[in-house]
Amino acid sequence: MSEHISSAFDRDLEAVQALVVKMGGMVEQQIVDAASALENRDADLARSVQLQDKAIDLLEEQINEEAARLIALRAPVSRDLRLALSVIKISASLERAGDYAKNIAKRTQVLLEVPAVNGSPKALRRMAVAVEGMLKDALDAYIQRDAKLANDVRDRDIEVDQMYNALFREFLTYMMEDPRNITACMHLHFIAKNIERMGDHATSITEQVIYLVTGEAPDEERPKRSSVTKLEETEE
Amino acid sequence: MSEHISSAFDRDLEAVQALVVKMGGMVEQQIVDAASALENRDADLARSVQLQDKAIDLLEEQINEEAARLIALRAPVSRDLRLALSVIKISASLERAGDYAKNIAKRTQVLLEVPAVNGSPKALRRMAVAVEGMLKDALDAYIQRDAKLANDVRDRDIEVDQMYNALFREFLTYMMEDPRNITACMHLHFIAKNIERMGDHATSITEQVIYLVTGEAPDEERPKRSSVTKLEETEE
Repeated sequence: MSEHISSAFDRDLEAVQALVVKMGGMVEQQIVDAASALENRDADLARSVQLQDKAIDLLEEQINEEAARLIALRAPVSRDLRLALSVIKISASLERAGDYAKNIAKRTQVLLEVPAVNGSPKALRRMAVAVEGMLKDALDAYIQRDAKLANDVRDRDIEVDQMYNALFREFLTYMMEDPRNITACMHLHFIAKNIERMGDHATSITEQVIYLVTGEAPDEERPKRSSVTKLEETEE
Repeated sequence: MSEHISSAFDRDLEAVQALVVKMGGMVEQQIVDAASALENRDADLARSVQLQDKAIDLLEEQINEEAARLIALRAPVSRDLRLALSVIKISASLERAGDYAKNIAKRTQVLLEVPAVNGSPKALRRMAVAVEGMLKDALDAYIQRDAKLANDVRDRDIEVDQMYNALFREFLTYMMEDPRNITACMHLHFIAKNIERMGDHATSITEQVIYLVTGEAPDEERPKRSSVTKLEETEE
């Protein structure tokens, strides 16, 4: 994978990266489980998502400590330093994404107290699956230092934004149709926002990848700009 | 401030913290300027916010490098390590908040192409001022290691969420009243979301403070739980 001869730094880095991959897998599972609990109105699964978040937080702490030990021990500079720092930043993004999954699980339990809104939970699950795929591919791009895949994931964030926009309009419709839907739709809207924010964190990870591979921060507004254009095309 | 005798580590840390405070001041100014450009339909100010973001990104890189040098040089453990890592995380939160300010400035320029929606930009500016205050106090709490102030800032995030909810309903009304408002309201809604996300980043900073002071992660869902309750009280 790497072209230069494997150094002590590389071996240490790979060990920490393995923890990041493990953490990513846990967060992906949380996203899938939270969305599934929502769709199936499964209070037990929602509660288990809520409890599982603690393990993710602990893993982030472990990753932070190992990354710091790596920096203290090897005193890396330039690219190696960026690599060591990227571990800290990517695990912070994963931790936040995990928080949003937990938040969805909590709102799901509140939603079980009010009448169901047809259709939306299914659409939210599709959105969650898209974001879970983005997160998975962002981490693959990271491990393989693959800027092309990273850019591809960034583009997919536009689709998630569009799913969010579609859902936003769907919620509007339901709320206009029947004010008794307002409580459920407000919660569902927050869930949609949380899923969209997870997509932002997947995008943050790809920015780390692009920075590591090219040495330049990506044109970070590219997906957003397209999204603005799309919005205008759709709305006008 | 600190009870133990000032060490080489403390002096180095203070130097990096001074950069974080400087970065915070720049981001606060960006938030205020972006909101003011929106309210006054000031394209020049919006453009200047957009350009200014680069300086914030560069400052974050500098902070990262100095924090890494600190870790490499002093090999801190336990609390000192958490302090060194907090610098990296807080500057990452500030950088994201700066990105949102830039994004608001970009959307403001798009909004200048469509008819104005009365009232909302003023409410958005109030929300932005609230978030700017949160960010300022979160950084003060950080510098003073003041968990009480940090908790106070976290509570204020509930108010920002409520401002967002109120705006969300206002946008609904405008869109229902006249479909020609839909484009502007979609952009204004994204701006409201961006401001709310800045509030999340201020909250992330307070979580670092609480963790540093108490050694425990805060009950991170407390503001959100209150928000859910408030929402139900309001809506049902």
